[in-house]
Amino acid sequence: MNLSSKLLTEAVEQFSGLPGIGKKTALRLVLHLLKQDSNNVQHFAEALLKLRQEALFCKKCFNISDTDCCEICNSTTRTKEVICVVADLRDIIAIENTGQYNGLYHVLGGIISPMEGTGPSDLNINSLVKRVEVETPREIILALKGSMEGDTTAFYIFRKLNEYKGLISIIARGISIGDELEYADEVSLGRSILQRTPFENTLKE
Amino acid sequence: MNLSSKLLTEAVEQFSGLPGIGKKTALRLVLHLLKQDSNNVQHFAEALLKLRQEALFCKKCFNISDTDCCEICNSTTRTKEVICVVADLRDIIAIENTGQYNGLYHVLGGIISPMEGTGPSDLNINSLVKRVEVETPREIILALKGSMEGDTTAFYIFRKLNEYKGLISIIARGISIGDELEYADEVSLGRSILQRTPFENTLKE
Repeated sequence: MNLSSKLLTEAVEQFSGLPGIGKKTALRLVLHLLKQDSNNVQHFAEALLKLRQEALFCKKCFNISDTDCCEICNSTTRTKEVICVVADLRDIIAIENTGQYNGLYHVLGGIISPMEGTGPSDLNINSLVKRVEVETPREIILALKGSMEGDTTAFYIFRKLNEYKGLISIIARGISIGDELEYADEVSLGRSILQRTPFENTLKE
Repeated sequence: MNLSSKLLTEAVEQFSGLPGIGKKTALRLVLHLLKQDSNNVQHFAEALLKLRQEALFCKKCFNISDTDCCEICNSTTRTKEVICVVADLRDIIAIENTGQYNGLYHVLGGIISPMEGTGPSDLNINSLVKRVEVETPREIILALKGSMEGDTTAFYIFRKLNEYKGLISIIARGISIGDELEYADEVSLGRSILQRTPFENTLKE
């Protein structure tokens, strides 16, 4: 794309480096910012810089936090007996939105993916093992993506935690609410049959 | 969305203020930037600030430019006899990509839209009238969106240029390449019949 201005080209390049943003969208966003008040653009840039320079990762669970230890780890109303292992902050938000979980989290920072060059050493797995030794929770829930990579990561963590005596569980896989059995993929439908639950249990929810 | 960090919330708010970016996408983009090297984020922020503070609008055509007068207006190989009136820089890029136009442009900075609160005085229309008086081009092409707003803007400019003696033309409307007549909208198909062209003319392209 041949733009009339080097400054414009540079800003478009920067935006189009973000995931899911192509050149055309980047140009649209940049033109929007150009129409804004200079102060607004200043705020925008400052918010990014401040985040990158000042945001901390909770030293316990590696959630993004403004302080050394995040709100969830510091909470007095949450049970410290259960740790839910997730890939990413977005998974914490999704689980919190269900209102079904009141324990702690551990953020891996991704999942094992040879395709993207992410190995176990890039993730917060060793710190999880150490944390489990110290905190000795009653249960560890593996809440990872339902894919080859997710399953690999879950299995790797399961093996790494071989010293751990508590329960290691994995979130249920199966048919989503509203799914037609006819159109469900075979693996999900197969799992939902293998891991069927006593009907009584569903009445307690 | 309840995020664990105020810095994160602030950055997500800023991103989700951009057109077409919701909270979830904003969070994805912000988490991507958090994983980047601190220098990259610095470059990103600087590119935006620099663009907003230093980018100029060409004093002739109002295209975004690094200098007082843009590359297109300064070009010695382009004809100064034709001015193409467009809403926005993106339209210049689109027309330049066709390779069918070698004249100058005039960027309005939008189109008349009561819904969005854009009136004639918000656009570079008076400067177009003055420019036409000085430069006396042979032709003015109105290349605006094929919508009520585009047509209103075109008509407004046509009326404003009543002193102008040259040709005022409007880009052709009709059936796009690959369109099925059966599924074309009635207005476009109607216009393409009313404004039919001698077949001979199409052979010259």
